[in-house]
Amino acid sequence: MVEADKPILPSWRDGAAKRAIIDFVARVTTAGHPDFVRPVDRIAVFDNDGTLWVEQPLPVQARFVLDRIQALAPQHPEWRARQPFKAVLDGDVDGIMAVGMDGLAEMVMATHAGITTEAFAALARDWIASSRHPRFGRAYTDLVYQPMLELLGFLRANNFKTFIVSGGGVEFMRTFSDGVYGIPPEQVIGSSIVTRYVVQDGEPALLREAELHFFNDKEGKPVAINAYVGRRPIAAFGNSDGDFAMLEWVTSGPGPRFGLLLHHDDAEREFAYDRDAGLARLVRGLDEAPLRGWTVARMKTDWELVFPS
Amino acid sequence: MVEADKPILPSWRDGAAKRAIIDFVARVTTAGHPDFVRPVDRIAVFDNDGTLWVEQPLPVQARFVLDRIQALAPQHPEWRARQPFKAVLDGDVDGIMAVGMDGLAEMVMATHAGITTEAFAALARDWIASSRHPRFGRAYTDLVYQPMLELLGFLRANNFKTFIVSGGGVEFMRTFSDGVYGIPPEQVIGSSIVTRYVVQDGEPALLREAELHFFNDKEGKPVAINAYVGRRPIAAFGNSDGDFAMLEWVTSGPGPRFGLLLHHDDAEREFAYDRDAGLARLVRGLDEAPLRGWTVARMKTDWELVFPS
Repeated sequence: MVEADKPILPSWRDGAAKRAIIDFVARVTTAGHPDFVRPVDRIAVFDNDGTLWVEQPLPVQARFVLDRIQALAPQHPEWRARQPFKAVLDGDVDGIMAVGMDGLAEMVMATHAGITTEAFAALARDWIASSRHPRFGRAYTDLVYQPMLELLGFLRANNFKTFIVSGGGVEFMRTFSDGVYGIPPEQVIGSSIVTRYVVQDGEPALLREAELHFFNDKEGKPVAINAYVGRRPIAAFGNSDGDFAMLEWVTSGPGPRFGLLLHHDDAEREFAYDRDAGLARLVRGLDEAPLRGWTVARMKTDWELVFPS
Repeated sequence: MVEADKPILPSWRDGAAKRAIIDFVARVTTAGHPDFVRPVDRIAVFDNDGTLWVEQPLPVQARFVLDRIQALAPQHPEWRARQPFKAVLDGDVDGIMAVGMDGLAEMVMATHAGITTEAFAALARDWIASSRHPRFGRAYTDLVYQPMLELLGFLRANNFKTFIVSGGGVEFMRTFSDGVYGIPPEQVIGSSIVTRYVVQDGEPALLREAELHFFNDKEGKPVAINAYVGRRPIAAFGNSDGDFAMLEWVTSGPGPRFGLLLHHDDAEREFAYDRDAGLARLVRGLDEAPLRGWTVARMKTDWELVFPS
């Protein structure tokens, strides 16, 4: 039951989006209401990049990949003459943007594989702790959306279990998800590469291999949610067409359902992008949200604050 | 902290196994103790077949497969002349036992694929509700081990999060894990087949395909635990060499660790099997348990009760 004695979602301005969230939570948590949902079935799923934290001008993990290529370059003299690595080492932004999915996959494998899961987590943690966003000059873990942190907390206070369901690498996100979002590692679902169990000198380890295991985007998101969570969530939050299938599946189930798309329309405080934003584009979602009963939250008008102050 | 004012693990007889469990839990939950572990890292993993419930004379899910073949046979006249189906339809026990992993996989695909996840779950639920064990005449969900139910509860009362990590099919186990073990679907890790997201007439569904996605046994168990849980558990419970790698990985980490193997030596109350038990064999585990500091619980002497009365 929604408690009325303390401010709910204080960084959300009064408006249709905030009202829709609060109304949904009130309905599913009120005993005796026809839309009441048992706590065990109160599952909410959140995209990460662009939904919980900043993803422009480049997704955070892509920047990690570029920095790892710079760091590993001395051990790979052949990269100086070979794309996509040459573009990165030359600081050739147009060349980097032109690598496409195959080039990106090659860079991920070159920087994310060949080490143990524990060594990779240590690299990711160090990088996250020391890197700064090029425009805001703040750590990426400070560039999470304050209204979404409040929403995660509000849902959990109402006995929802919150999951991240992201195209990002699962082992990258798990290094900060608990500290930043209060989401423990086992509630983070992401893309993954193959890992293999090895025992060397009696010491077991998990070795990351240069082979894709699962790409958690688009139609992969419902598949992964089913694999990890084992049932259909009742609420889904995203910001791009990569989240379309997830919202479609979640909001098509029986009983009360909630889908929300965050529209980045605030160039002043964050970024403005939708239909032409490449991998982060939002086209079908914007077109079909009204027909499907999905809420569209507009950063510029619905959020009093963007980042934690 | 272990509470002393109510009986702990009442169906476990006093002995080395019970004392080792209680001592471990006391150490990791006592603030200020050098072995104290934060609640978020108190992860315990349990094999299912033969560890939490009966797996003889045939694993429960294998029996489900055989019954599904009988049920589907009228739609597949070709099965009457084709192995491994012919052996099943003829009730030829030796022929069934001789099908091997390839034959088993073929039967699983023929009975578990081509339908939606929701239709499959309904079939599994109906079967579980109506089937009886050939020797005990009780529902399989009554043939769970009372001492292990108490152990799951004892760990959870001490802020452990309990996971099933089984070679069994994840969507099969999830139909009863919450009701029987108090383990919600998202804490069940198992073998899986490929699922595909499809939208038919505007209705999305997940379709189960006749292709293996992951076989969660042996060295696959540490890999899957890392993929789902995102960190190394501190306690692992199993009963066969299929659990060896899981126990090895769990008990090799830094800090306090606990590994336990259940030895089925009680032909009178349940079954007696170890070194010659085919897929359920326990050889390396028995040999190396003393060297590795693993506890071996003996059903005959350590358990006052086997099944809930």
